[in-house]
Amino acid sequence: MINLDDLKVAIKDTTILISIMFINNEIGTKQPVKEIGAIAKEHGVLFHTDAVQAYGNTPIDVNELNIDLLSISSHKIYGPKGIGAMYVRRGVRIGPFIDGGAQERKRRAGTENVPGIVGFAKAAELAIQNMDEHIEKLTSLRERLRDGIMGKIPYAKYNGHPTERHPGNVNICFEFIEGESLLLSLDLIGVAASSGSACTSGSLDPSHVLMSIGLTHEIAHAH
Amino acid sequence: MINLDDLKVAIKDTTILISIMFINNEIGTKQPVKEIGAIAKEHGVLFHTDAVQAYGNTPIDVNELNIDLLSISSHKIYGPKGIGAMYVRRGVRIGPFIDGGAQERKRRAGTENVPGIVGFAKAAELAIQNMDEHIEKLTSLRERLRDGIMGKIPYAKYNGHPTERHPGNVNICFEFIEGESLLLSLDLIGVAASSGSACTSGSLDPSHVLMSIGLTHEIAHAH
Repeated sequence: MINLDDLKVAIKDTTILISIMFINNEIGTKQPVKEIGAIAKEHGVLFHTDAVQAYGNTPIDVNELNIDLLSISSHKIYGPKGIGAMYVRRGVRIGPFIDGGAQERKRRAGTENVPGIVGFAKAAELAIQNMDEHIEKLTSLRERLRDGIMGKIPYAKYNGHPTERHPGNVNICFEFIEGESLLLSLDLIGVAASSGSACTSGSLDPSHVLMSIGLTHEIAHAH
Repeated sequence: MINLDDLKVAIKDTTILISIMFINNEIGTKQPVKEIGAIAKEHGVLFHTDAVQAYGNTPIDVNELNIDLLSISSHKIYGPKGIGAMYVRRGVRIGPFIDGGAQERKRRAGTENVPGIVGFAKAAELAIQNMDEHIEKLTSLRERLRDGIMGKIPYAKYNGHPTERHPGNVNICFEFIEGESLLLSLDLIGVAASSGSACTSGSLDPSHVLMSIGLTHEIAHAH
């Protein structure tokens, strides 16, 4: 989790934006977004959060958390792939991402993905409607999986925050076995698994997130 | 249509790319892409074409036309909205459009729009399969509409090239009436129409394409 004192020190007169993942996509750690939002407001800096993992998995009130810009993605809440959205607080002006036609108020030119937008909106409606139940169910499954693995397998290391984390995230390193070997063994008994995020699937490099939180190359690789 | 001598003169030692619309989206004019491709090759300059209007409406052989980069869009060939593609000739290296994950060989990060890709591929398969028939049918409808309007309505001006044009494109200016008024009158008798491209719908400015080919503001507006 981010150190708030470090953050305060890092803000210079020229800082215009704080951007942070609401929940990390690999280890599931939830950041103290409310505190970060307060710091941003105090320093007159815009606050953007990548809430792709968070949306639908934790309550988000952009006013209470002082969020100016927030990115979300449809496929993380069971909506269609290929569509996302950005919340932009009224009064915050952003430049165009794609130049050309006048679509999306000249911020993103090109014919809109109408079926994607409609599907995303429906998925968002359902996600918000069922959020409490969804979080409760995922959390209980997460705890069961974590307890099962941690209780039965020696040399397993549970990464990320014990409680302030994504309800559906379990991240574990197993000493003395490489991630890739573990995958092959799991596949042989019919369990589908990945040793990295979808963005880096196929990569044999250890996770940059695990390396960042201080794990050794060897341990990070055992994931 | 582009003047090829002007194009040759415009190419400097520092020119790295020629980019031209294969077929214009407003007036339907087809550019002499084969000749442009030959000029690009002769000068060692990469050739990109926006073939969004052309794909499925005219045969395209990237080798014969010496096209290095070609952009196409799904919804123009009855595929789903929100998905496009770019042909990149083997050996041509392009930088990433969106940084982040490793998707699309690190050229466009983000979870791929899988349903869009599959739908686009199917639409492309059908478009190529039925292209001859499609072109013949559209051309005959185009000619009928053009002849009907031009034969019955005085002060109508047919814009664009008489033959080297998109099979489905008719672009006509009507003197003494503004485009917006014409739309309202058409709507009253149940005919759906637009006075501009989808990219500029709602805009009351005259078409920049019509202005570029030398029409006056007044005539361009009567469109």
